[in-house]
Amino acid sequence: MIRTDNLKQPLRWGQIGGGKGSQIGYIHRDAAQRDRNFKLVAGAFDVNPERGRAFGVEELGLDADRCYDDYKQMIEVESKREDGIQAVTIATPNSTHYAISKMALEHGMHVVCEKPLTFTAAESEELKEIALKHNRVFGVMYGYTGYPTIAQAREMVKRGDIGKVRIVHMQFAHGYHAEEVEKNDPGLAWRVTPEASGPSYVLGDIGTHCLQMGHLISGMEMDSLSCMRKSFVESRQLEDDAHVMIRYKNGAVGTLWCSAVAVGNVHDFKVEVIGEKGTIRWWDEHPNQIEYAPLGEPFRKLDRGMGYLHDAARFERIGGGHPEGLFDSWANLYRNMGHAMIAADNDAQQELASIWFPGIDDGIEGVRFIERCVESADNGSQWVNV
Amino acid sequence: MIRTDNLKQPLRWGQIGGGKGSQIGYIHRDAAQRDRNFKLVAGAFDVNPERGRAFGVEELGLDADRCYDDYKQMIEVESKREDGIQAVTIATPNSTHYAISKMALEHGMHVVCEKPLTFTAAESEELKEIALKHNRVFGVMYGYTGYPTIAQAREMVKRGDIGKVRIVHMQFAHGYHAEEVEKNDPGLAWRVTPEASGPSYVLGDIGTHCLQMGHLISGMEMDSLSCMRKSFVESRQLEDDAHVMIRYKNGAVGTLWCSAVAVGNVHDFKVEVIGEKGTIRWWDEHPNQIEYAPLGEPFRKLDRGMGYLHDAARFERIGGGHPEGLFDSWANLYRNMGHAMIAADNDAQQELASIWFPGIDDGIEGVRFIERCVESADNGSQWVNV
Amino acid sequence: MIRTDNLKQPLRWGQIGGGKGSQIGYIHRDAAQRDRNFKLVAGAFDVNPERGRAFGVEELGLDADRCYDDYKQMIEVESKREDGIQAVTIATPNSTHYAISKMALEHGMHVVCEKPLTFTAAESEELKEIALKHNRVFGVMYGYTGYPTIAQAREMVKRGDIGKVRIVHMQFAHGYHAEEVEKNDPGLAWRVTPEASGPSYVLGDIGTHCLQMGHLISGMEMDSLSCMRKSFVESRQLEDDAHVMIRYKNGAVGTLWCSAVAVGNVHDFKVEVIGEKGTIRWWDEHPNQIEYAPLGEPFRKLDRGMGYLHDAARFERIGGGHPEGLFDSWANLYRNMGHAMIAADNDAQQELASIWFPGIDDGIEGVRFIERCVESADNGSQWVNV
Amino acid sequence: MIRTDNLKQPLRWGQIGGGKGSQIGYIHRDAAQRDRNFKLVAGAFDVNPERGRAFGVEELGLDADRCYDDYKQMIEVESKREDGIQAVTIATPNSTHYAISKMALEHGMHVVCEKPLTFTAAESEELKEIALKHNRVFGVMYGYTGYPTIAQAREMVKRGDIGKVRIVHMQFAHGYHAEEVEKNDPGLAWRVTPEASGPSYVLGDIGTHCLQMGHLISGMEMDSLSCMRKSFVESRQLEDDAHVMIRYKNGAVGTLWCSAVAVGNVHDFKVEVIGEKGTIRWWDEHPNQIEYAPLGEPFRKLDRGMGYLHDAARFERIGGGHPEGLFDSWANLYRNMGHAMIAADNDAQQELASIWFPGIDDGIEGVRFIERCVESADNGSQWVNV
Repeated sequence: MIRTDNLKQPLRWGQIGGGKGSQIGYIHRDAAQRDRNFKLVAGAFDVNPERGRAFGVEELGLDADRCYDDYKQMIEVESKREDGIQAVTIATPNSTHYAISKMALEHGMHVVCEKPLTFTAAESEELKEIALKHNRVFGVMYGYTGYPTIAQAREMVKRGDIGKVRIVHMQFAHGYHAEEVEKNDPGLAWRVTPEASGPSYVLGDIGTHCLQMGHLISGMEMDSLSCMRKSFVESRQLEDDAHVMIRYKNGAVGTLWCSAVAVGNVHDFKVEVIGEKGTIRWWDEHPNQIEYAPLGEPFRKLDRGMGYLHDAARFERIGGGHPEGLFDSWANLYRNMGHAMIAADNDAQQELASIWFPGIDDGIEGVRFIERCVESADNGSQWVNV
Repeated sequence: MIRTDNLKQPLRWGQIGGGKGSQIGYIHRDAAQRDRNFKLVAGAFDVNPERGRAFGVEELGLDADRCYDDYKQMIEVESKREDGIQAVTIATPNSTHYAISKMALEHGMHVVCEKPLTFTAAESEELKEIALKHNRVFGVMYGYTGYPTIAQAREMVKRGDIGKVRIVHMQFAHGYHAEEVEKNDPGLAWRVTPEASGPSYVLGDIGTHCLQMGHLISGMEMDSLSCMRKSFVESRQLEDDAHVMIRYKNGAVGTLWCSAVAVGNVHDFKVEVIGEKGTIRWWDEHPNQIEYAPLGEPFRKLDRGMGYLHDAARFERIGGGHPEGLFDSWANLYRNMGHAMIAADNDAQQELASIWFPGIDDGIEGVRFIERCVESADNGSQWVNV
Repeated sequence: MIRTDNLKQPLRWGQIGGGKGSQIGYIHRDAAQRDRNFKLVAGAFDVNPERGRAFGVEELGLDADRCYDDYKQMIEVESKREDGIQAVTIATPNSTHYAISKMALEHGMHVVCEKPLTFTAAESEELKEIALKHNRVFGVMYGYTGYPTIAQAREMVKRGDIGKVRIVHMQFAHGYHAEEVEKNDPGLAWRVTPEASGPSYVLGDIGTHCLQMGHLISGMEMDSLSCMRKSFVESRQLEDDAHVMIRYKNGAVGTLWCSAVAVGNVHDFKVEVIGEKGTIRWWDEHPNQIEYAPLGEPFRKLDRGMGYLHDAARFERIGGGHPEGLFDSWANLYRNMGHAMIAADNDAQQELASIWFPGIDDGIEGVRFIERCVESADNGSQWVNV
Repeated sequence: MIRTDNLKQPLRWGQIGGGKGSQIGYIHRDAAQRDRNFKLVAGAFDVNPERGRAFGVEELGLDADRCYDDYKQMIEVESKREDGIQAVTIATPNSTHYAISKMALEHGMHVVCEKPLTFTAAESEELKEIALKHNRVFGVMYGYTGYPTIAQAREMVKRGDIGKVRIVHMQFAHGYHAEEVEKNDPGLAWRVTPEASGPSYVLGDIGTHCLQMGHLISGMEMDSLSCMRKSFVESRQLEDDAHVMIRYKNGAVGTLWCSAVAVGNVHDFKVEVIGEKGTIRWWDEHPNQIEYAPLGEPFRKLDRGMGYLHDAARFERIGGGHPEGLFDSWANLYRNMGHAMIAADNDAQQELASIWFPGIDDGIEGVRFIERCVESADNGSQWVNV
């Protein structure tokens, strides 16, 4: 699933958002540059241009004239330079993803964007069309998908190791916001503010992660759903907890739970796929293992890097036993996206199609899921088609 | 919750069903007689009278003349004896619970019955009325509720250790019937046959267990629910998997999953209660521990028998560390039911009310839950009031 | 390993020690009588004869004239009665085991005794000789050995599932006595008093349990050992922590750790056996599971009651998933000891030899182990032959 | 413990060994360059100069004239360049560490070296002297020590959260070499060959890791030890399994187990420190958590990144819940070593002393431990002073 070879030359790469104090900005830079597949040469890191420029020059060693005031300036100037950036990463609040992505694509840049991708599914669909028209790669950063264990789980389902899928359970539950922690913290406040965050909080922020992972591993397509959402912290305008029941197109069923009020948890992000002949479980907190039970046998823990895994899962960076972490998963994804960008540049469409990475379709599915959940939840949790 | 003193004299006790080869019959006998609170003196153990009598005499050492052909004969004869049985346990298929219970109560016997209690909630309500009228104790064997850890969890919720309850997750999932195992096994076949089992399989067989446990610990009252049920093994007339979303009366929400096709699991019977200030988790497979996280702290495992538990949970039979099991839980329940029967006989209504055991109200709630789930599931999983 | 049939007639049985407030007395009575294999008819329950008699009559329903002042009186009187006891259980402090056992055997009674068996290995050897001479069964209550998982582990080693054994790790560590808890508690004080407890505390009290279990599962015979023992609570005359390294006769090696100062643990009683082709792990706190890894595969948890187990482990009392506990393990052992007693009475030596239960040889090995550990520890932890 | 600020300018850095196909070479490059604290500008990557140069130029983008034939050439040439390397990492077999380290130090370079450091403790001591004389930093790559959980554990012990330490348990056990896997694999064969590996295999390869970690967390100093070592795979000249018992200077005791034949394990690298008032456990496979039990309380899992941790452990790269891995730990260590090198260059001795990293003393302790273990093991496991 993930390639093990690196690009011959790093792609020239810029970043929008992700400046001083941003964790997400740091992990994007780390992952992209980890194996010399991308080289950061430009940025518009901050809504405050001065602060953004200082960050780029002092912390990252960029040339001052490639630290821009805002994304518009950056995309315009860089797109005219001979050595201008070939790809851009967007690590800004949700409300800005659509406009920035659109402009970057139309100026010939490959895009890597944070999720949830846009406020509406229609916007995401439009971005897909633009990307196709311009033959640009559009990566959406579902960053947990780059682990070898995920590749193993996918391969097992694909090969029929667990038979026909019957049940998919997805959850991403933490307890960080069990109280009104956003009260004096603007960095948190935007997440529960519709203007910046869109129509949902936990459904978009974490629910889309487990939804995408469940889809990735199981391959199931949703048919209809029913959603309950609640703001347990009453001052919140957006939900901090949601439960969803799902009917899939082939007769399978599923559930999804996302919560920011699950006291005691740090990342109870889990996916369980139950088939006729076996069950697979994955848990984000210990991503180097998956649990697998074939019919009539007990659960066992499979470990990354071991000889009993399928070949598709053998792209570890360090031997089994030594734990890999989220940075390694992200770097794997950027590597594949880099290869995809080169393929697109060469118009090697067949090769492009063969390179897996979380992309615009994952982005669209996530936004559509949010829309339908909100529709259901706000109408007495009635069932809605997806 | 559970008393630690035994009765001065064992109650004279009879058993209906539970003969040769029955595990449930064995555990009832073991639990009732464990501490000399009950003494088995009569039985109608089998649909085959000869086999039932042989079992009673040879395996259990009963007098031949107190091994009866059927429950009717037993109740009639015993109720006329001066030394006749004071209490009877019903361990027969679901379809017979109503009639046997009714006759026993009307002949002045205390009753302990298996669950699900009856086919319809109306029948269960009627049994409640009869029991009240005759001042008889009616225990329903939710046998997992006698562990000290359950008492601890209840006490914690009651004292406010986890604050106001927000979310209740309940599940009881095993994988024993992931294939059509009942094909050549009549002992299993009745469970998926509506005539013997009633309108549901897993909802009644195991769903009621986790429902009752969730209610017991959290104290939440259901308001409405939506249920999906499936027969993944297609030959089955009754569901082998069901998912339920629940709205509680005070604004809390919940989910329930019961399944017989959860490959790899033996007893994934778990309850999780999330409150404003803490979370509690209980898992049937390791019943000597519960997990507890207070707000802002990690999960910890509390162990039965330890000094840091609430007094209400200090009724262990053996010191901490040494594992207790299901037989011990059942024996605890029979002990309390014995005390309740004595209290009823003495018309000590206040004392009777103070003795906890799983009873007729648990039985009614279970049957009503099944009814509503079936109603919802068979109508496109629409929401129904409970 | 454990039979599933019960005796036709209960054996007449008496108990010495184990009176009011004794947990060990309770579990002996429960286990022996669980399946009507033994019937308690006599006892000398207490050093205080009045209290002992009151306990026997009021709590246990015994005849007053069979509640004796002391063990001597009981053995003498009962041995002359036609309906006198056939077997006796000794649940008194270590210092008395030798004398009581000897007298009981010499009066024709079968004996079940607590461990550690005696103060010296020579005494234990002598008891073995007496038992042989009188053709009496001598059970030593290593009560953890009656679980089906233990039978499974033994069978796996015996069949070669893990190949030749290389390493055996044994430990029994709890934290109950990390402080001087015995200061005001005579019930604890005797354990750290040489006069009552013998030459060791934790080595005898819990070390012998994990030693016996390691031997039982692995079959290894000790060749030599080195022991460090410490009294971390300085007021103690006997060790509260000990570590042992062991060389086995066939080239395997092992370690044993027993501790009463392992803060945070309740029962870290674990055995791990590593062979050329596989590894097995057992943990007392969750006795319904064992972990097993064949070469080149990950660990898996095997569950009691499942179809993939060896036949030798199929003697469960209740189906898989439902947890069994320590009481069930003990009852299994008493059942086998009952069968052995009948075989001995019938002089059916071949059958007797075929019935497994923890016996005098386990008792001897435990005492010898303590002796050698003390010898080593008190001589600078030098290596000593076993 | 770990600083969160990066160097203003990357240090010019070279690497010896770690060429094509080397995992250890990759992780060194990744960790050093992760935050722009080091910049790779030179290398002697391979015993085959051509292959080494090709690797440096093609895979790493180095100038051809800074890819050297061997370490001698590299150190000589680079030490004369004005822009020559300031630091060098040695990732070659054990037998070469001493000579390379010595030459690098004497040419004014800071050194980061793999472990075990040298064949004899005397050699390591000599390297320490040379480093001191030349005021050079000498890092030894105990790469597991850079996790925030380790900092938390150290801080807890230092603050007295667990009271006076009584017991330290250390183990590093895997099952990769349970069979003679080295037979046709030269990459493995050198590890069990005395000429290349030195006097031990697992004691040096993994035993030193858990020894160093146990020392780091507990602060205990060894007094004497007894060691059993075995070659369970009989063709091996060096041990593949070793058990050690340890007496510490203050009365505490400990054990260490290292094994390459522990079937089923991937990295059972664990440290447990038991004190008068609490117990701490760390496990390499899940390095984002530690277990902690205060006296009278159950174990709980502390998670990296959470508010309840000590400040000293708050140097995470990404928020709690998201797992960090071994690469992140290494990068943390290289960052601190970079700061130390700058401090040494500025002769800021006080600052230098305040910067923690695994260094020459850890290296010496490891080699001395191996020497004493071998001495003990080869003399009937007798006790030897450390």
